[in-house]
Amino acid sequence: MAAHVASKKAEMEVAMLVRDVDVCRDINETHFNSKYFPEHKLPENIIATTNAKDALLGADFCLHAVPVQFSSSFLEGISQHVDRNLPFISLSKGLELNTLRTMSQIIPHALGNSRQPFTVLSGPSFAVELMKKLPTAMVVASKDKKLASAIQQLLASPHLRISSSSDVTGVEISGALKNVLAIAAGIVEGMNLGNNCMAALVAQGCSEIRWLATKMGAKPTTLTGLSGSGDIMLTCFVNLSRNRTVGLRLGSGEKLDDILNSMDQVAEGVSTAGAVIALAQKYHVKMPVLTAVARIIDNELTPKKAVLELMSLPQVEEV
Amino acid sequence: MAAHVASKKAEMEVAMLVRDVDVCRDINETHFNSKYFPEHKLPENIIATTNAKDALLGADFCLHAVPVQFSSSFLEGISQHVDRNLPFISLSKGLELNTLRTMSQIIPHALGNSRQPFTVLSGPSFAVELMKKLPTAMVVASKDKKLASAIQQLLASPHLRISSSSDVTGVEISGALKNVLAIAAGIVEGMNLGNNCMAALVAQGCSEIRWLATKMGAKPTTLTGLSGSGDIMLTCFVNLSRNRTVGLRLGSGEKLDDILNSMDQVAEGVSTAGAVIALAQKYHVKMPVLTAVARIIDNELTPKKAVLELMSLPQVEEV
Repeated sequence: MAAHVASKKAEMEVAMLVRDVDVCRDINETHFNSKYFPEHKLPENIIATTNAKDALLGADFCLHAVPVQFSSSFLEGISQHVDRNLPFISLSKGLELNTLRTMSQIIPHALGNSRQPFTVLSGPSFAVELMKKLPTAMVVASKDKKLASAIQQLLASPHLRISSSSDVTGVEISGALKNVLAIAAGIVEGMNLGNNCMAALVAQGCSEIRWLATKMGAKPTTLTGLSGSGDIMLTCFVNLSRNRTVGLRLGSGEKLDDILNSMDQVAEGVSTAGAVIALAQKYHVKMPVLTAVARIIDNELTPKKAVLELMSLPQVEEV
Repeated sequence: MAAHVASKKAEMEVAMLVRDVDVCRDINETHFNSKYFPEHKLPENIIATTNAKDALLGADFCLHAVPVQFSSSFLEGISQHVDRNLPFISLSKGLELNTLRTMSQIIPHALGNSRQPFTVLSGPSFAVELMKKLPTAMVVASKDKKLASAIQQLLASPHLRISSSSDVTGVEISGALKNVLAIAAGIVEGMNLGNNCMAALVAQGCSEIRWLATKMGAKPTTLTGLSGSGDIMLTCFVNLSRNRTVGLRLGSGEKLDDILNSMDQVAEGVSTAGAVIALAQKYHVKMPVLTAVARIIDNELTPKKAVLELMSLPQVEEV
């Protein structure tokens, strides 16, 4: 996103706050992020820094891409450098463990400013395709219509369409729960259950996410839009994300502990799965597919038994 | 479907009406349909025939799988052998050229019996995966609830889940228009526009089909269910159907005439595309993606110009 914004206007200065000093030097000296985008030169108006104060000084907007589970502690540590009127554009997707909070709750709370301007950006968008300037469409949502419109102007380009929305809940909940459904998609692939099964699973998963999100106050059209079904389809049919990989290995018969021990990073969907059962109970929603993933993660159910259970549910009217 | 039904109950006799005498003899003598399923032995209670009268005599149900464009003339020719109470299960998807009629209108009209019992069966279901007994889920829709429930009982099995619905319009319209969207998906692939673009396109296409179908009286939940988004996802992300192939070759720069001349059969989506503009006008629905496909087919627009047009539409609020 830094490269996208920077390439829109050469006179704009984009500060990129990174943790790793080597990555930082790399970006400033060679204009390459060799770890993630070795083949794409970054615009020269991106200046990397490891110093939060420098990065935030005089900023007009802040794109926040810290993983959900680490966002609260990270923001608390830098809050004294954040202007109370600095608009945040959240790119992070998921629910905070235990608290079940989303980024729209985490950011203002961690900064101690309930009125910190907030937007969330979501939609089907592999970063590498954005880098290649391939056509992409996303949604920016905010309760503040003017702010959503300003971010739309900031980000829209001939190859990136930005729709705006006021439905923060819909965008955040589908963004979080799609990672759980991605684990289910991986399981179906790992068990070689075929494409019919994959399509039925994803359609059912989209419905379950829609049922829950609308009970939480989301609009149904958000859930069938870019940040809902659009992003879910990409994640389930195309992406070999960490979440889908966890599912694939579960479906092939590996144990969760062995899978997680062999991975560098926690897959966001594994922690979000834990929240699914709590949310389903709290909002009185039946979510057979998503709760099955949670039970598989908790070792209460094998993938094989889950498939049998789902196929044996009473044959009903479609709702 | 014949093999599926026959394998459920060995004592049931399934008559299969075919045109080709060689295929007919093959099935009866070797129990293989070597043209379409060379690797799957058919149940021995399938009896093939080329004689409509024999096939229909004493039948309890009729699975109709004749392509939409030929259904009317075919049924008129055999109508004298069809019992007025014989329930039809339509597997054919599309709109009849010029008349814009769907199978629920074509069948009773061609048989000269407005009360011919009718159901439509749809959902994400590659035949070869059903043959392999991989888990599959479909929807049967009928205005007659009891009949839908009877068909549900007839077809449901441990590997085939059947939901029932009263929304015949929703199931038929999404089944027909998904073939037009499949052409668009092929174009995106042929132009190498990437996965972000594919997901955005399919999400937008699903919305357009939903907008039209609901104006025609369909329920929104049908369009987000198995026979809607479920089937659309399968067709657009996985299937290399004739429709998707037409799109792929259009996207690669070939001319429609050359493509159609090189194909054995007309792709259903090409004829249905012609209906899209008429339906969009009749029901006052904006369908930028589906009408772009129709204009490409009509040689009014190049794929490249279509992409530019779609990316340059005003950036709006998500609806």
